[in-house]
Amino acid sequence: MPKKVDHDERRRELVQASWDVLCKEGLEGVSLRRVANAAQCTTGRIAHYFEGRDELLVASLRLAHSQAAERMQTIADKETDPLKRLRAILLESLPLDTRRLKEWQVWLSFWAAAIGHKELAAENRRRYQEWRAALASALQPLTSNRDAPIIADRLVMLIDGLGIGATLEPTKEKRLRAEAEIDAFLTTLS
Amino acid sequence: MPKKVDHDERRRELVQASWDVLCKEGLEGVSLRRVANAAQCTTGRIAHYFEGRDELLVASLRLAHSQAAERMQTIADKETDPLKRLRAILLESLPLDTRRLKEWQVWLSFWAAAIGHKELAAENRRRYQEWRAALASALQPLTSNRDAPIIADRLVMLIDGLGIGATLEPTKEKRLRAEAEIDAFLTTLS
Repeated sequence: MPKKVDHDERRRELVQASWDVLCKEGLEGVSLRRVANAAQCTTGRIAHYFEGRDELLVASLRLAHSQAAERMQTIADKETDPLKRLRAILLESLPLDTRRLKEWQVWLSFWAAAIGHKELAAENRRRYQEWRAALASALQPLTSNRDAPIIADRLVMLIDGLGIGATLEPTKEKRLRAEAEIDAFLTTLS
Repeated sequence: MPKKVDHDERRRELVQASWDVLCKEGLEGVSLRRVANAAQCTTGRIAHYFEGRDELLVASLRLAHSQAAERMQTIADKETDPLKRLRAILLESLPLDTRRLKEWQVWLSFWAAAIGHKELAAENRRRYQEWRAALASALQPLTSNRDAPIIADRLVMLIDGLGIGATLEPTKEKRLRAEAEIDAFLTTLS
């Protein structure tokens, strides 16, 4: 079924192009024309795959979420020690290098855009649910079943707080501070 | 000097109108035309007081910051017990009612807009410095001089993490959870 494969592949290319434009221009800068330029196609072709800008944005957000989730899974699979594994996942979730800083900048735009926007808000909630579940699973060997979801929730807030600080002021000091806070939190678990 | 008074008062009215539009339409919805409509004046009049949309936005952000800071000061002045005072300030800073939820929604937009925007980023940093200083001052009777700025920093992150959660999912559960987290933190101080 080459046609189906082509369709999915073309769609994926357009979502990737939209993500590239997002990272470069910010959310306000995403227009179908710019995405078409980045993907070297016509806006008509985008219209063939997506109902409009909003659908493309939600798809970009979902792509970024799943890419981040995959990276974390890869990292988690490498570590056998539960505490080290959790630490690696938490550090990977922070804006500690250029790529993840870019991701955080995009999350921030999406948060703002999700206010009063049903589909984006739903995608955001989905992302938080997955993120909480991933943390609860990494916490399982380290704490009781009863405490895991509560601590996972607390970690989500900690990462958000640290991440925003290090995104709005992307300095070395902020990055070191974020790492130190993660370690301080982990000592409460061991 | 009636002229000077008029000038400041007119300027303040325009900033307030811009803030009202922001709260209603979101950051992307702020245009000079809409602000002019809200202030019942012409866009020409706005141009007389502000260089453009950006200057008006920075002024709106500053107004919101100082209004929040004033509210906290009023609350702080009412409480003589240092722990209760700190608790009141922290709760006031969270999106626990409609008005503060609106404020948080606007902060989120400004964070996103501050990325790659020098003046907004500078105003954001200024706000964080003031917020940290206010917390450090409230912490002074409760902890050592050495620890106050470190704990203040941690509280800033805690409030950001809690506030985002309760802004993106403005449910009763999230609000109760935020209050409980504040109380859990405060027990570590007493």
